[in-house]
Order: sequence, then C-alpha cells, then structure tokens
Amino acid sequence: MKKLAAILFPNFELLDFAGPLEMFGSLRNVIEVVTVAEKAGPVTSTQGIAVEAMHSFADCPPCEFVLLPGGLGTFPQGQNAAMLEFLRRVCPPAEQVMTVCSGSGLLARTGLLDGLQATTNKAFFAQCSGEGPAVNWVKEARWVEDGPYATSSGVSAGIDMALAVIAKHFGSTAAEELATMTEYEWHKDPSWDPFAKVHALV
Amino acid sequence: MKKLAAILFPNFELLDFAGPLEMFGSLRNVIEVVTVAEKAGPVTSTQGIAVEAMHSFADCPPCEFVLLPGGLGTFPQGQNAAMLEFLRRVCPPAEQVMTVCSGSGLLARTGLLDGLQATTNKAFFAQCSGEGPAVNWVKEARWVEDGPYATSSGVSAGIDMALAVIAKHFGSTAAEELATMTEYEWHKDPSWDPFAKVHALV
Repeated sequence: MKKLAAILFPNFELLDFAGPLEMFGSLRNVIEVVTVAEKAGPVTSTQGIAVEAMHSFADCPPCEFVLLPGGLGTFPQGQNAAMLEFLRRVCPPAEQVMTVCSGSGLLARTGLLDGLQATTNKAFFAQCSGEGPAVNWVKEARWVEDGPYATSSGVSAGIDMALAVIAKHFGSTAAEELATMTEYEWHKDPSWDPFAKVHALV
Repeated sequence: MKKLAAILFPNFELLDFAGPLEMFGSLRNVIEVVTVAEKAGPVTSTQGIAVEAMHSFADCPPCEFVLLPGGLGTFPQGQNAAMLEFLRRVCPPAEQVMTVCSGSGLLARTGLLDGLQATTNKAFFAQCSGEGPAVNWVKEARWVEDGPYATSSGVSAGIDMALAVIAKHFGSTAAEELATMTEYEWHKDPSWDPFAKVHALV
C-alpha cells in the first residue's frame, strides 16, 4: 500500500482537491489517502465546503504521493513558512508530486520546481508563474510532467492529470476503469488545452 | 440570496458532491451552500474524505435548491426513515432538486419521482432504476429535467447538470464563466451519453 498526502489550507479550491481524490480515493486496494493541513481538523474551501484534515504537518506520515491543490489560498500560503517547510520536507522523497491550478505557483515558492517544466491555470497564468521566476513555465498544456513532478492547468485539468498518473503507476486499465465508472471524458493528450487560447496565451 | 442544501450521508461519492458544489459554491453573490446530514459533523465519502455537515436534518433551514449526491451509501439510505422523511420535507417546496448518479434511486424511494422522467448512472442502471419502478427511467441521457427535478447520470455528469441548472436560473453567461474558469469542457447537450453505449443500454 502506498500513501497519498492531500494538502489542505484555507480557501483551497474544492474541485482541485476532490477531482483527483475521486480517482485516487477509489483505488482503495493500492493507495491510502491521508489529508493534512497545518493543524488537523476542518479546513474550508473557497466554495464554503469544509473538509477534515486527518493530520497536522507535524504528524503527517511518510507518503509516496503528494497532492497540492490550488485556489485563492495559495497566495497567502506562499508567505507561510510552515507550509513552505512542509512542502520542502515531503516532496523530495515522494515518488510523485502533483499540483493543480495555482498549486504549482505555491510549490514554486519552495524552489523545488526551479529549472523544471511546469504549468498552471490559464486564467491567472502571469500571477501564478510569477511565483517562480526560475521555473520553465509552459503556456499551452493540460498538464506537464517533469521527473516526479506533475503540474496541471486549472481546476478540472487535475482530473486528467490524476488519471494519467494512475495509468503510469498502476496501469492504463485501472485508469480507464475509473474514467468509465465516473462517466468522465478523459483528455489523455497533455497538449490538449483550449483554455490557453481562450486566455490569449498562445 | 438563495440557499442550496447539499445532503451528506456515509459512503457518498466524493465527486458527485464536489463537482456541482465547485460550481454553485463559486456563485457566492447569489447562492449560499449549506451542508446537511442526519447529524451535523464530519461525514466520510467512499473515497475516505470527510466533509463537515453544518446542519442536522432537524435544523436545516428552508432551501430553494437541493443537491443529493449518489454513491454506495444511497442503497442503505433507502432504508433509512430519517433520510426519506427529510427528502419528503425539503424537496417538494424547493425550486430545483438535483440528484447525481445513484442519488436518483434514493430519491425515487420517496415516491417523489413517480410518473416523472429521470436518469441515473449507467454502470448500475438496473440496480438504481429498480429503486423506483414507477419512474420513467431514461437509459440514454447525460441528465434529465422534469419540472423542478434534474437527475444526472454517473459522477462527473453532475457537473454538466449543475452548469445547465445554473444557466437556467442565473443566466448562460454565469455558467459559461464558471466552465471557463474551471477549465471544464462543458457538455451542454443532455442527450450526449457515450456511457449508455459502453454499458450496452442502447
């Protein structure tokens, strides 16, 4: 069994978190999802829904997978030393680190993405990419993988990234079954990105 | 301001709940989302994620919108008198009642869908439709609207239904903006349903 640490913070974006976890959380025979925040207990999303963090940063168990959602809360978290210290502790030993939306901007604040390719949401591309001037930001991508780091574009892009990561680690059959079961039209091509054009980035 | 009651129960399906609420919860200027369960407090999804219920059934405020997710928990809830009584109390006065996935089977247990058109998930269509023999079940539909009831197919179909309902009540511009902001490829045609074919229903 592998463990996945899903990170919560105030004003996270609900679907950034719940989309990938619908997929990973349905693989109960191979992966255990744990939720973690600076303090254990309920953490409220921008959408007003509160999710329970099982662990504090201090007592988070070692995890092979990390999921960092985005949302308006990522910008103040970029100034939170406890968050940055936690990311610098859990990400380097992980097999796979995933961000959704502005989560890549927050992760970039740690320096861990420096020199790597990454993407972020297209609606706030300049603001998010500004969080990491030494990152090679990709303007047109549903998601980008560079070594153990997978960074997705905005919100629902996290679902496509999650399925691609599941296919890589647990086989394409597992990912196909999840997409079919959840009646999700999976975008398998990481270069599919109509939203880069909507926001005139390309 | 309108209120939306999002109903929780043990073993709800995470994305059935969080997909529509990503959309409704982002309309903070026109709608307030409240979460409700038999007892207030954390309620755990099949995916292992716990969401806080703000209200018990007893103290739920009047709500113009109702969202009932699906999941494995809907089947035992169909035998739970407190759940059925709550649905019979909150749904008839609501402007709009929405179900996702097997949520329509649970709602059918109340008799409120009798004689109406409805759909449910395609992976467990026979089992879910069996919960309501007097419902006119539609085998091929992303979602179905009949009066104030909107019932969607499995899991991610709830997002398309939510955007259609938002367009109806709050205007198509609001729905388009949400789809673009969340980088979601919105399926606007309720008859789009490749999963009915996958499961050999048509």
